[in-house]
Amino acid sequence: MNNKQNRSDHRIYDWIRSRIDAGVWSPGEKLPSTRALAADLGVSRSTVVVIYEQLAAEGYIKTAVGARARVSNGLQTRQVPPHAMRQAPKQTRTLSAYGERMGALAFAQRPVSDPHQINFLYGAIAEEDFPTLAWRRLYNRALVDKQHLLYYGASEGEASLREALQSYLMRARGLQCTSDQILIVQGTQQALDLCAKVLVDPGDPVVMEEPCYLMARRTFESIGAKIMATPVDEQGLDSSALPSTPCTLAYVTPSHQFPLGSVMSISRRQALLAWAQRQSSWIIEDDYDSEFRYGLRPVDPLQSLDTHACVIYIGTFSKALSPQLRLGYLVLPPALVTPFRQAKQLADRHSPMLEQAILAELIRSGAYERHVRRLKRENDRRRSALLQAISAHLGLRARVEGADSGLHVVVWFKDIPMDSEHEVVAKAKESGVGIWPVSPLFAEGSKFRKARCAGFVLGYASLKKSAIDKGIGLLADVMQPYFAKAAPLQN
Amino acid sequence: MNNKQNRSDHRIYDWIRSRIDAGVWSPGEKLPSTRALAADLGVSRSTVVVIYEQLAAEGYIKTAVGARARVSNGLQTRQVPPHAMRQAPKQTRTLSAYGERMGALAFAQRPVSDPHQINFLYGAIAEEDFPTLAWRRLYNRALVDKQHLLYYGASEGEASLREALQSYLMRARGLQCTSDQILIVQGTQQALDLCAKVLVDPGDPVVMEEPCYLMARRTFESIGAKIMATPVDEQGLDSSALPSTPCTLAYVTPSHQFPLGSVMSISRRQALLAWAQRQSSWIIEDDYDSEFRYGLRPVDPLQSLDTHACVIYIGTFSKALSPQLRLGYLVLPPALVTPFRQAKQLADRHSPMLEQAILAELIRSGAYERHVRRLKRENDRRRSALLQAISAHLGLRARVEGADSGLHVVVWFKDIPMDSEHEVVAKAKESGVGIWPVSPLFAEGSKFRKARCAGFVLGYASLKKSAIDKGIGLLADVMQPYFAKAAPLQN
Repeated sequence: MNNKQNRSDHRIYDWIRSRIDAGVWSPGEKLPSTRALAADLGVSRSTVVVIYEQLAAEGYIKTAVGARARVSNGLQTRQVPPHAMRQAPKQTRTLSAYGERMGALAFAQRPVSDPHQINFLYGAIAEEDFPTLAWRRLYNRALVDKQHLLYYGASEGEASLREALQSYLMRARGLQCTSDQILIVQGTQQALDLCAKVLVDPGDPVVMEEPCYLMARRTFESIGAKIMATPVDEQGLDSSALPSTPCTLAYVTPSHQFPLGSVMSISRRQALLAWAQRQSSWIIEDDYDSEFRYGLRPVDPLQSLDTHACVIYIGTFSKALSPQLRLGYLVLPPALVTPFRQAKQLADRHSPMLEQAILAELIRSGAYERHVRRLKRENDRRRSALLQAISAHLGLRARVEGADSGLHVVVWFKDIPMDSEHEVVAKAKESGVGIWPVSPLFAEGSKFRKARCAGFVLGYASLKKSAIDKGIGLLADVMQPYFAKAAPLQN
Repeated sequence: MNNKQNRSDHRIYDWIRSRIDAGVWSPGEKLPSTRALAADLGVSRSTVVVIYEQLAAEGYIKTAVGARARVSNGLQTRQVPPHAMRQAPKQTRTLSAYGERMGALAFAQRPVSDPHQINFLYGAIAEEDFPTLAWRRLYNRALVDKQHLLYYGASEGEASLREALQSYLMRARGLQCTSDQILIVQGTQQALDLCAKVLVDPGDPVVMEEPCYLMARRTFESIGAKIMATPVDEQGLDSSALPSTPCTLAYVTPSHQFPLGSVMSISRRQALLAWAQRQSSWIIEDDYDSEFRYGLRPVDPLQSLDTHACVIYIGTFSKALSPQLRLGYLVLPPALVTPFRQAKQLADRHSPMLEQAILAELIRSGAYERHVRRLKRENDRRRSALLQAISAHLGLRARVEGADSGLHVVVWFKDIPMDSEHEVVAKAKESGVGIWPVSPLFAEGSKFRKARCAGFVLGYASLKKSAIDKGIGLLADVMQPYFAKAAPLQN
């Protein structure tokens, strides 16, 4: 026993020594308190005290009454520097084809948002638009709701949320499905990633809108898809330009084309569905900001016209709640329910459960719909402010596109050449205004680009009306020199 | 104007009619209130009132003073049934190779946890072990911490959390890295999925422990990896049985082999690292329950012995906090930081931000370490209760394996044949006890299985000490008949 005790003491002594020698605990650094270490190692505190005294006697550490022991300052240790500091060893190990492809893709830099800047950043939401009180009340309740144990949830998402969503989608979007067809995911991006994994093989033809939502395109490029870029016009995706060969899927944003903002006409919708049937293609309908329609025309989703169960509908809570929550959902054709649930299980088991419970209650109680209605009014005001400011400060120099719905517009400037976009962005930034060029969203360069002048994406969901007016005013000043050079406007 | 007004009124009328005809709003169902619909459509309430009156006059809906209008009960509508109810059209559309492979995999049924059952369910945590008060306080604070806008976060995770983790891992695990090497993910499962995507191509050889953590094996199988099953013994993965050919990666659980619970010896660790260098293989170290070590021997991770930057370390908060949070992390070799960040961005952009902020503060403040220490004492008590109950009720009939650490043990019964495991599980369930057979965890069947008798995985982290004793007692009764048939025990 005593022997055993001694052996264990030595093991602990050696372990501490090795950590000091390796520089895990470096000279001058505090050691764990004897109480904490004793608890960690599952030995009596006195055991640790004895070992510390031994190490102190040998000069490895300094002990002082009432203070935590420290590693001696003078001590020479053979520091093993962490990976990053070592000259990285020549890497003979390889990445997958996916890893290589992905490395070759251009990823947009994440914009650092400066609070002093008036930033027309698309995808940003005003913090005061988040229903903080309701969310907190429900979170605190969900946190104390008794479960008899904490265990993994269902990969398809909580039944309460899927049922609440099913009837919400019926009411709000005229979308008919069963709650089993709904899969809860980490926002639109995970929905796209699951579609790419489950449906697309390297080399498969995938129809993308041009210009398009780049993250969607990157997702299919990373899987090795052959992108069939198809132009959009004021009626949305040009169905006459769709490939006449079989395709694996087509990704579309019919309610509010990203970025140009057109709403796909009913005839185009029917043409697209007929094409998908001919080419046995899946269709992904990304309904990313459908809550925000300001016109008189409510547009039911493509999914509701789908009689061949080929439309995969994607919805998100990033626009009406917050992009930081990472909550979204898919409405799947029955044939895809099982493979997508399995893919979700392999991707991350399931989405966090507390947030699902909160969202279910928020929707069930009607609070979510009231919130969306309030938010819609709020964003309609921002939108009007933006349109007024543009006509006041920029007048006929600017042409606005896609303002009927959503949370952003595209503004074209016929007097500013296409290749000056980045110059204007830089100058705008200097005067404290953030705007975003359209060119990067034309993944095929100018091939399908009609407007040969400069264009910018202006998001307004995070800005106050006053800031919107001020920002457009500043933008007008930045653009004056270009206008001055251009032909005077005929009246 | 008046004309335009009329047209828009007609459009709204037609839209409501079409919804009633299509059965989106079914007979007897309430229509939206005139106020709500007016807000939705952006028209005056009186406009909607007029339209409702028109529809009522035509018998489509019933209006009543002070009540919501309803669709008329008698109404014949040409219901378009939702997808699931239609006879699913012959599906000419295909899945990817991934989708097909995944469909062929056997996924374990998610156990439904019955509160009346004493469930030795591995992976389940007692709800009272979650630090509810601290978490709620921090969540409520994070919720009101002013940001000037809500926008997407960094794909690698919040800097505050990565920095807190970096020093925690140094203190708690002797793991040296920079915070840039840390990637925040949705639990261990997403970490594995990212490894599979970024590192493994179909046909690539991947070393798995046998028996193993099935979800890890499924993840690599789904990507099409060639699984090289390698046996484990009481020293962990048998390095002498490793393939002598180049491999893409090896997945190991050195701190507490899942499920058998052995701790990989230092010589085996060195042998594995040397092998990985020879075969230019990556190593995934899954340190899933390292917080719970009860023995005298603190084991630093494989990563801390890695001088060739080939070890990918995976940690999770599912055992010390809750599996429902879906929070975990990777510590990456420098060469893999960029591809993994990009893969995470394509997978779901980033992990939810509030939870990251809370966790960062929990760790930074030291509250997390205190919590883990408390939890460790608690689980040590449960573990002792389990071991005592086993020796009291089952005595020499049972052999316990892997009890030095973690939150589960494996118990072998030499008197019960291997192929009776499911029978015993079923009988145990009848008497209100949940236990889990080891056989499914031997993915290669009995090829590498030493113990030819029945074995069961018993998790104890969600059970009270009294329940543990009662459960084992009931289990002993269930097993009596098998013992009776067996040879009497020699004393």
